[in-house]
Amino acid sequence: MAKELTSRKENYSQWYNDLVIKADLAENSAVRGCMVIKPYGYAIWEKMQHELDRMFKETGHVNAYFPLFIPKSFFSKEASHVEGFAKECAVVTHYRLKNDPNGKGVVVDPDAKLEEELIVRPTSETIIWNTYKNWIHSWRDLPILCNQWANVVRWEMRTRLFLRTAEFLWQEGHTAHATKEEAMEETMKMVNVYADFAENFLALPVIKGHKSENERFAGALDTLCIEALMQDGKALQAGTSHFLGQNFAKAFDVKFADKEGKLDYVWATSWGVSTRLMGALIMAHSDDNGLVLPPKLAPYQVVIVPIYKEMEQLASISSKVEGIIKALRAKGISVKYDDNDAKKPGWKFAEYELKGVPVRLALGPRDLENGTIEVARRDTLTKEVVPIENVDVYVADLLEEIQKTIYNKALEFRAASTTSVNTWEEFKEVLVNKGGFISAHWDGTPETEQKIKEETKATIRCIPLDAVEEEGKCIYSGKPSKCRVLFAIAY
Amino acid sequence: MAKELTSRKENYSQWYNDLVIKADLAENSAVRGCMVIKPYGYAIWEKMQHELDRMFKETGHVNAYFPLFIPKSFFSKEASHVEGFAKECAVVTHYRLKNDPNGKGVVVDPDAKLEEELIVRPTSETIIWNTYKNWIHSWRDLPILCNQWANVVRWEMRTRLFLRTAEFLWQEGHTAHATKEEAMEETMKMVNVYADFAENFLALPVIKGHKSENERFAGALDTLCIEALMQDGKALQAGTSHFLGQNFAKAFDVKFADKEGKLDYVWATSWGVSTRLMGALIMAHSDDNGLVLPPKLAPYQVVIVPIYKEMEQLASISSKVEGIIKALRAKGISVKYDDNDAKKPGWKFAEYELKGVPVRLALGPRDLENGTIEVARRDTLTKEVVPIENVDVYVADLLEEIQKTIYNKALEFRAASTTSVNTWEEFKEVLVNKGGFISAHWDGTPETEQKIKEETKATIRCIPLDAVEEEGKCIYSGKPSKCRVLFAIAY
Repeated sequence: MAKELTSRKENYSQWYNDLVIKADLAENSAVRGCMVIKPYGYAIWEKMQHELDRMFKETGHVNAYFPLFIPKSFFSKEASHVEGFAKECAVVTHYRLKNDPNGKGVVVDPDAKLEEELIVRPTSETIIWNTYKNWIHSWRDLPILCNQWANVVRWEMRTRLFLRTAEFLWQEGHTAHATKEEAMEETMKMVNVYADFAENFLALPVIKGHKSENERFAGALDTLCIEALMQDGKALQAGTSHFLGQNFAKAFDVKFADKEGKLDYVWATSWGVSTRLMGALIMAHSDDNGLVLPPKLAPYQVVIVPIYKEMEQLASISSKVEGIIKALRAKGISVKYDDNDAKKPGWKFAEYELKGVPVRLALGPRDLENGTIEVARRDTLTKEVVPIENVDVYVADLLEEIQKTIYNKALEFRAASTTSVNTWEEFKEVLVNKGGFISAHWDGTPETEQKIKEETKATIRCIPLDAVEEEGKCIYSGKPSKCRVLFAIAY
Repeated sequence: MAKELTSRKENYSQWYNDLVIKADLAENSAVRGCMVIKPYGYAIWEKMQHELDRMFKETGHVNAYFPLFIPKSFFSKEASHVEGFAKECAVVTHYRLKNDPNGKGVVVDPDAKLEEELIVRPTSETIIWNTYKNWIHSWRDLPILCNQWANVVRWEMRTRLFLRTAEFLWQEGHTAHATKEEAMEETMKMVNVYADFAENFLALPVIKGHKSENERFAGALDTLCIEALMQDGKALQAGTSHFLGQNFAKAFDVKFADKEGKLDYVWATSWGVSTRLMGALIMAHSDDNGLVLPPKLAPYQVVIVPIYKEMEQLASISSKVEGIIKALRAKGISVKYDDNDAKKPGWKFAEYELKGVPVRLALGPRDLENGTIEVARRDTLTKEVVPIENVDVYVADLLEEIQKTIYNKALEFRAASTTSVNTWEEFKEVLVNKGGFISAHWDGTPETEQKIKEETKATIRCIPLDAVEEEGKCIYSGKPSKCRVLFAIAY
């Protein structure tokens, strides 16, 4: 097997990078921080998009498209937003190149300087609220429930494929409402959609919660999030849904007349998930042999490998396989038949393990005689020989079973990796020796969170929605606290 | 009706702009030349994407994603490409803003100047071939059949919604092949896919042909295109498929070892269609009442409007409508039921005419008594009253009929607007008084085409694939010619 991976134990970070490259998911491009998403990786992203898009539409949203560029001055309009977003970004200053008068190649034409610089969108609240100003006049124009699928750019200094790239793909929902209550309800609705997607498609258990003030989106009054745990015990924020209050409506002067004709500012939300989900998917489930993909997001769910020595054997295997493929496809199961004669079965087995194909079927001459077929599961790496008759039913059930097993494994891992602590010593000890989520009391101040971060690198991942009221003392300051929050070191 | 359009006769160009705005398809944004695609317009684009994506996959292609930015130096690598593409484009020179030390707002941080400027992709041949260099080593790695759905930017000075915008959405296919023949076959295959899509989904008859040298893609050896005729007699290029030879492989040094181990440069194609198709769709079929959408691309194919005076009547109509909706949806037909009590039926009729909904059903108390329903076609603006029983079957047939009728109408218009001419006088006379496609002999030289363009604004739209060999004399130079080509004034 030429494509051996670094093991997770040896170097988790290297294992991740190896896996992304060797499983043909993505690679770095010639442009610093920008990735190329390769066909196999993009096929997984397309499946995610497809399901999310369906869920957005089922909850009443429509898609639209807003400009890539944002005038620089727009960022200054919302005070906290500019601090968070207008700094590390790609700035367009010119609109023309010309032939280099001193030789070969092209140079920027100094005569083609823009009057106002354009920023490649890092997120689109400003340009969208500037647009909504013209769409909204009365309560009849509300709510507006738009989503866009787009690329955005944030000039990151340290980049990692999928997890942190200068350009990434995402969706951003931007909604406008007549009342605070309705906007808050929308914020909650969408974090629930994200959690539903994460758990039922990514097979990734997530904790829903509020962000602390330090971790909140720049310009939001409240940020809800879903937080997941990776196999190295670090947390990954997998989606956010922001209640923006009237901040952007005020910044862009977006008012509406209510039923009584009274003018008020519009209430806003925004919510997004990105290609970062690819990173979460990879890191949550995969192993030292390669990717482990939940069947619902696998580009193909089943691969069939013929085992043969002579071409005659291949012909009779292929003829049997034809019927199996037909039966599987009739059940909506995607199948690849790899009858490439240039590769040996062993090579193929390793390759499809690396690529995370959930189920592998292998069929040889003896199977044909016996009416059997070998079924291998990627998640448990177990194999069994089953009757070829009704193997489509067997596989359909198995795929459901695998989806559940992957989820349960991640859930058990998270449970085992979540620790309640009551003292600062305990907190530091667990963080260093065990990692994972740490449930602890906190005094609710940004200062304390900041100090904890400086001393340990841990941040508050969220204040869980289902946190129970419980009297306690802040592990750091000793001040009183009313509930536990979740700390972790995060991606 | 508040949303009256300028008529086509009065001012075709103004009619188009009015229609795009008033039918809620798109609007100009705060960023010069960049449009906002509104939900109704985007829903049509999504339908186009969905069908094209299916057709690409059925012809063996996969999707991937390449960076938004291209290093400036990449454009200089292919000599003719740089002339065509590296000029009017958005140039990123800096990667950070900072607070203005002299006051409010943000300014570009002069310390954050990029070593090499980045160009926002106007098309991706260069960055993709720079990537393919690492993917291709032997004939076993070929063919590569990638497509990407992306936004691109070309700094246009005169922009028009959908037809010519600085940023637009498109797909670009980029394929790599071991032989010239295979690449040429691919080029032809994709122009056929585009023609199939245009005719069967856009209901737009197109002429397939080769571009003349003057109109060829910068860097291509041959450009195939589909050309359509708009109602004002101007032509619109609706899609192109380029045979790039080994130009990009040579520019980026992409070689492969063939079965004998001999190294050779890889053969390339690229092909694309864009949101410009939205402009073609609108201009080809619509009328002075608004959009006319082919059923296969309409966001909803049927709208149902209840006619009532009292709320009790509405209740019994709605209960009848429920069954109709169910029956239509079971046939895969998309339906909207507009029971908004705040608007009168007359307003709704005008609104859905403007939006181009192919079929409108209206149901009142008298219909309920008689067991009838009114069916109105958007394309012909005709109405009839039919039995409510099996109206789903009636509508399903009608939608097919409308799709065909729209296509046939456009085909008849094109036939009537295509003129064969044999002299220069005739050419100029037809161009001024009739417009449309002019079929004429041409001597095959770029110089003659250039002169004809300068004198009349007409260009060669294409040398049709089905052109028959015919001896003749160039209408301009009088030199011998072997076939007729199609001239027109183009968008």
